Amino acid sequence: MLEQLKEEVFQANLDLPKHGLVKYTWGNASAFDRDSGLFVIKPSGVDYETMKASDMVVVDLDGNVVEGELNPSSDTPTHAVLYKQYPEIGGIAHTHSTWATIWAQAGLDVPAMGTTHADTFYGAVPCARFLTKEEIDSGYEVETGRVIIETFEERGLDVFAVPGVLLRGHAPFTWGKDVHSAVMNSVVLEEVAKMNLFARDLNRFAEELPQRILDKHYLRKHGENAYYGQK
Amino acid sequence: MLEQLKEEVFQANLDLPKHGLVKYTWGNASAFDRDSGLFVIKPSGVDYETMKASDMVVVDLDGNVVEGELNPSSDTPTHAVLYKQYPEIGGIAHTHSTWATIWAQAGLDVPAMGTTHADTFYGAVPCARFLTKEEIDSGYEVETGRVIIETFEERGLDVFAVPGVLLRGHAPFTWGKDVHSAVMNSVVLEEVAKMNLFARDLNRFAEELPQRILDKHYLRKHGENAYYGQK
Amino acid sequence: MLEQLKEEVFQANLDLPKHGLVKYTWGNASAFDRDSGLFVIKPSGVDYETMKASDMVVVDLDGNVVEGELNPSSDTPTHAVLYKQYPEIGGIAHTHSTWATIWAQAGLDVPAMGTTHADTFYGAVPCARFLTKEEIDSGYEVETGRVIIETFEERGLDVFAVPGVLLRGHAPFTWGKDVHSAVMNSVVLEEVAKMNLFARDLNRFAEELPQRILDKHYLRKHGENAYYGQK
Amino acid sequence: MLEQLKEEVFQANLDLPKHGLVKYTWGNASAFDRDSGLFVIKPSGVDYETMKASDMVVVDLDGNVVEGELNPSSDTPTHAVLYKQYPEIGGIAHTHSTWATIWAQAGLDVPAMGTTHADTFYGAVPCARFLTKEEIDSGYEVETGRVIIETFEERGLDVFAVPGVLLRGHAPFTWGKDVHSAVMNSVVLEEVAKMNLFARDLNRFAEELPQRILDKHYLRKHGENAYYGQK
Repeated sequence: MLEQLKEEVFQANLDLPKHGLVKYTWGNASAFDRDSGLFVIKPSGVDYETMKASDMVVVDLDGNVVEGELNPSSDTPTHAVLYKQYPEIGGIAHTHSTWATIWAQAGLDVPAMGTTHADTFYGAVPCARFLTKEEIDSGYEVETGRVIIETFEERGLDVFAVPGVLLRGHAPFTWGKDVHSAVMNSVVLEEVAKMNLFARDLNRFAEELPQRILDKHYLRKHGENAYYGQK
Repeated sequence: MLEQLKEEVFQANLDLPKHGLVKYTWGNASAFDRDSGLFVIKPSGVDYETMKASDMVVVDLDGNVVEGELNPSSDTPTHAVLYKQYPEIGGIAHTHSTWATIWAQAGLDVPAMGTTHADTFYGAVPCARFLTKEEIDSGYEVETGRVIIETFEERGLDVFAVPGVLLRGHAPFTWGKDVHSAVMNSVVLEEVAKMNLFARDLNRFAEELPQRILDKHYLRKHGENAYYGQK
Repeated sequence: MLEQLKEEVFQANLDLPKHGLVKYTWGNASAFDRDSGLFVIKPSGVDYETMKASDMVVVDLDGNVVEGELNPSSDTPTHAVLYKQYPEIGGIAHTHSTWATIWAQAGLDVPAMGTTHADTFYGAVPCARFLTKEEIDSGYEVETGRVIIETFEERGLDVFAVPGVLLRGHAPFTWGKDVHSAVMNSVVLEEVAKMNLFARDLNRFAEELPQRILDKHYLRKHGENAYYGQK
Repeated sequence: MLEQLKEEVFQANLDLPKHGLVKYTWGNASAFDRDSGLFVIKPSGVDYETMKASDMVVVDLDGNVVEGELNPSSDTPTHAVLYKQYPEIGGIAHTHSTWATIWAQAGLDVPAMGTTHADTFYGAVPCARFLTKEEIDSGYEVETGRVIIETFEERGLDVFAVPGVLLRGHAPFTWGKDVHSAVMNSVVLEEVAKMNLFARDLNRFAEELPQRILDKHYLRKHGENAYYGQK
């Protein structure tokens, strides 16, 4: 079932090391099929060099395996919680990419300091809080998803305008209209995390991008008046 | 038309990711044909892996497409403004390369701190100001070109002696006698942006290159007494 | 003898430059065969491009060559001391990888600042002291092994919970249940060394990972309740 | 003439971009033939992708071309001065490698902070002074060689114990018993330049390597009691 989606998810997972975002098996990408209410995710801890499209696991929104011989990624419940809350999301990626993880470890939001950021993220990428002892004990991966939702709700953020988050002390999650976009958003987040760290290192008074330019760049690529790319 | 120039522009655009200056489609290079007054530029948002020389778009100096099936780069009006103002320029490149973009986000000129810089740029690479709300609304990409011209005029800089600029909060543009030189100047700018950041990080009192050495290195490679390379 | 282990050790040594941990011949990996009490290690100073599995050297726990035409790695006595003291270790890797070596040169433990660290190291990776003049003169490589043991004993650390160490002014050693794990632990140490340096650079008040999350991530992958990967 | 040496010099020049030390044509390596008193060097500004062994240029110790169709590297007089002064040197390499150049731009010696450094350089790698106006005018490249000699003489350094130098505001030169060693020493210098910058960034009180360990590591690889590698 969902053979085409398995192929997409497989390719997206291979794109993670190709873009330098993942070493060994430290990452996972999934895609959601809105019609069936199921999603496809990579298996846990399988070497990327031997992994096949048919190894992808089909899972329902409660995190139950529907098809597949292998255990799904240990982060599967986090993906399930996000698809359940935000069914418009078509794909999710999780990596421990170096520079985004550095911001997560520093416990700081990634501010919008340039147009590279504004082309994809319409404002700062938030850093969610640490989980509590109770949350960890009650179900670490499910609660991780809930803390992401809490972060977006408390701050009044639109998950499509800001398609990514940092988990404090952990690493980023990004998402998009499909799994390819989710991976691309991880690439962008990694790059702006690096640029912004060194921009402030070079000039500690470096400002965030003025709102007028943030608007211009984001809306040049997104929404009904977008004019980037081909029709 | 301009088939050879299309091939050059196509190759120059492929050189951008090859030199690590561009991820996905974040960049563009163009070349100007002085005889016809037309320039060739890459199409907007087309995957570099599938792009062909024949996809290049021919544009006039008012930014109108003269030949080509695809939309030209969204930055086309910036290129047009520059070729119109400086018809001696034969090629332009625009990237969001990491280290040059960091200086753009920091809002600082890249000072001439070493001979690697002096071999290509005869003095600091200037950082242009943010665009105003009025400029953004009246035509962002055209006004971007005008702010570059303003920067060179206000500072009395020769565009051939300093073949590049940073756009504050955005990224660099470089140019040259042809599109290959424009790309090479992007490579140099990226490298000296990295070197200079860390030279000041290592020693905050690190001086700019003395004028006598700046002169020597620049003039060893440029002008009538140059003696670098083959005749 | 030990032909399969030679092949594993050979491959593990090739993995060191593949993961960017080693330039030229600056590194070595070995594997221990508990049945015979012998270990297999790479020869000293042999170019990785021409090295063959059959060039691997078999050595006993006193550091004597048992089989092999070539001199074993000059660090062989350090490996011998560690296998003798901790016979549960199945493999050891030594590199001068950039970021781990930077912490060694800074003379600092690598603190557990994120889950990438906690997935492999159950707490800080310690930095051992410089050797004394007497230790250097009496046998530098043997004493290097003894200083590692001293470090773990004085701090009451379990070598399997923290499978790596920094030698002050020198570089890291890592180990694991086999030589593949030893190399993987070198990869992880290198990555977290980089992440942690820049996390503190970005936010000098960046905290270590709370104990509850350190526990969760380490125990998700290790021990009887681990649930990462396939059975 | 000197066909084998041309092949070695050609390969050594190709090794420079392979090790990430050179972009485009920014670098050069040469080898000295003591019997004839001639040296072989790469031509100036020739693309590394099209360059052939037969393009290498044979030059005498006064910098005159003895054989070859192409102009030799513009830095040829610097190589000539060094071979004339130190005929034991068998090869020289010059690059603008990122991290060594950063130290040159910062105007600082690279201190011996770890054993990676001590394995190759027996103490700090000195940073030579800027050239004066008079020196630049009288012959920039010849005077560059003389300033290197002055630096080693004033500080009482042995060019074989410290086989490299930084030229302030410019970049490194390294040398060795042959051109392969000269390139290897450039690789080591680049790596320790990076490590040492970040070791001090991490801990501004990070010490230089104690003399006893500097002695041990240098003498483990050099001199009559060396025991690294194969006989």
